[in-house]
Amino acid sequence: MHSFKDLTNHFSERFNTTHFPEFPISLYEPCNYFLTLGGKRIRPVLCLMGNELFEDIHEDAYNAAIAIELFHNFSLIHDDIMDAAPLRRSMQTVHTKYNNNTAILSGDVMLIRCYDYINKITPTYLPKVLHLFNKTAREVCEGQQLDMDFEKQVTVVLDEYISMISLKTSVLIAASLEIGAVIGGAGEANCKHIYEFGRNLGIAFQIQDDYLDAFGSPEKFGKDVGGDIKQNKKTFLMLHTLATANKQQKEEINYLIQNNPADKVAKMLAIYKACNVDDWAKTLKEKYLQTAYQHLEDMAVISARKQPLKELAAFLIARDY
Amino acid sequence: MHSFKDLTNHFSERFNTTHFPEFPISLYEPCNYFLTLGGKRIRPVLCLMGNELFEDIHEDAYNAAIAIELFHNFSLIHDDIMDAAPLRRSMQTVHTKYNNNTAILSGDVMLIRCYDYINKITPTYLPKVLHLFNKTAREVCEGQQLDMDFEKQVTVVLDEYISMISLKTSVLIAASLEIGAVIGGAGEANCKHIYEFGRNLGIAFQIQDDYLDAFGSPEKFGKDVGGDIKQNKKTFLMLHTLATANKQQKEEINYLIQNNPADKVAKMLAIYKACNVDDWAKTLKEKYLQTAYQHLEDMAVISARKQPLKELAAFLIARDY
Repeated sequence: MHSFKDLTNHFSERFNTTHFPEFPISLYEPCNYFLTLGGKRIRPVLCLMGNELFEDIHEDAYNAAIAIELFHNFSLIHDDIMDAAPLRRSMQTVHTKYNNNTAILSGDVMLIRCYDYINKITPTYLPKVLHLFNKTAREVCEGQQLDMDFEKQVTVVLDEYISMISLKTSVLIAASLEIGAVIGGAGEANCKHIYEFGRNLGIAFQIQDDYLDAFGSPEKFGKDVGGDIKQNKKTFLMLHTLATANKQQKEEINYLIQNNPADKVAKMLAIYKACNVDDWAKTLKEKYLQTAYQHLEDMAVISARKQPLKELAAFLIARDY
Repeated sequence: MHSFKDLTNHFSERFNTTHFPEFPISLYEPCNYFLTLGGKRIRPVLCLMGNELFEDIHEDAYNAAIAIELFHNFSLIHDDIMDAAPLRRSMQTVHTKYNNNTAILSGDVMLIRCYDYINKITPTYLPKVLHLFNKTAREVCEGQQLDMDFEKQVTVVLDEYISMISLKTSVLIAASLEIGAVIGGAGEANCKHIYEFGRNLGIAFQIQDDYLDAFGSPEKFGKDVGGDIKQNKKTFLMLHTLATANKQQKEEINYLIQNNPADKVAKMLAIYKACNVDDWAKTLKEKYLQTAYQHLEDMAVISARKQPLKELAAFLIARDY
């Protein structure tokens, strides 16, 4: 069994290479640029961990992991255009460094490249993995669409938001684990549990992410803190604040959203704190985390093999940056 | 054996259905809208024809054909954003009717949907078809990138342009035929010939398309005539005109490109005609058409089975709209 750190190193050795041809440079250089920005490589390593729950890591799991990481990066390149985000991991996004057209097309070609790696998988598992990969890819798009739709809606119910987050973020984490498990020969029940472990962990992780966007340290977080507030994003924090704020606070929130004053972030954060959404978010995160652990517990796999996933979950959720 | 028209009807019966879930409407309605704009469905029917060269049409060929047509439509949705094209088949493009973000994401989800249909193909042929489909998809992106790069370059050599066109347009036509042939159990040599038949036919077709954009009738062509001229596109016609124009004509071309006067299209067309590019384009088209026919001739398949493809090529290239 390997730790998350070991597997991250193993994965990086294979991933930190060129995934694209040289020509046309104008198409592939932006792809390479974006991949060099790094990232925690959580999803591909989850694929390897899902695989190692059942057997020694198979070569196919590495190919699936590369496809998953490329897919994640494709989705970030396109999301950054749609969200008009200037920075990603403290560096310029593709559409900012180049232009929108380049970001559209480089994203497209990165998505297409995923399927070359999927196609390296043993024919026995190829249809099943391709099906799961594709279903997930579609859901991630649906999640991004709902996210954009919600920005225009006056009110969003927390359940709708959770369902959006589940699509936008959690299903890819869940599918990464399950794809690894499928390649490891896991049965239906275990596949379901590992998927649900990932999905619930993903929601907990997103609650954390929303929390950090508001309350994190900008240096450690590597993103513009308060970015969600600036964009009037309906995050976990904002939805709960709107549901619990008093009349005066609601009026101030509406004023801030409509007028975008220079001190909008600071003022919104003050309201968040007055409504105790920081504590509330921590409790909600804990609820999803416990559900995730239960699914891991319920898997018919000896306890020792589950240890790395348990440790990873604890690490991901405890991070204070 | 079936005619192109028969196969178009057979394909349409299967294609004119919903390829997407209902929800979120904001994501899938634009996909459905774009597909209802129609189109000649040339590529999927070529896939069926490539298949029928070797055997009765197999169910897998229909699934591949649907994937190909969805891919073509995905590429149009994204190309229309990049080219800032307001109309497609006389109707609003997706980014015009909705917005850029919707067009990006609906295109993405349409591309992903292709692979669901590819995944229905018998495991025996799946890896080979997926490989060819993916290689082609990548090349189409490369072609689009080169097309955009060329717009910014001062001079483009005809050979570079042909290589761009081959990637942007012809490889998908070629691969459609070859994918059909692969599913029909064709050997390597026949696959190569059918691919080259398609690739050369595709180039001839693009010469025709450039020609029609300049000299076609707007009602029949269904596009803004002179669109390439307005956008300063370096088409076959423009490149040859620049290569053969006299000093005074070159100066006028430069003036028209830089100043975009209201009568730009009419004045540019007058120069095209003075340089005889219309006749030249017809001759060049004929050259590629003959090469295409030669590859069809060289295929180890009885002559009668080739007849529908011969007729189709003649029809495509002779069209005066």
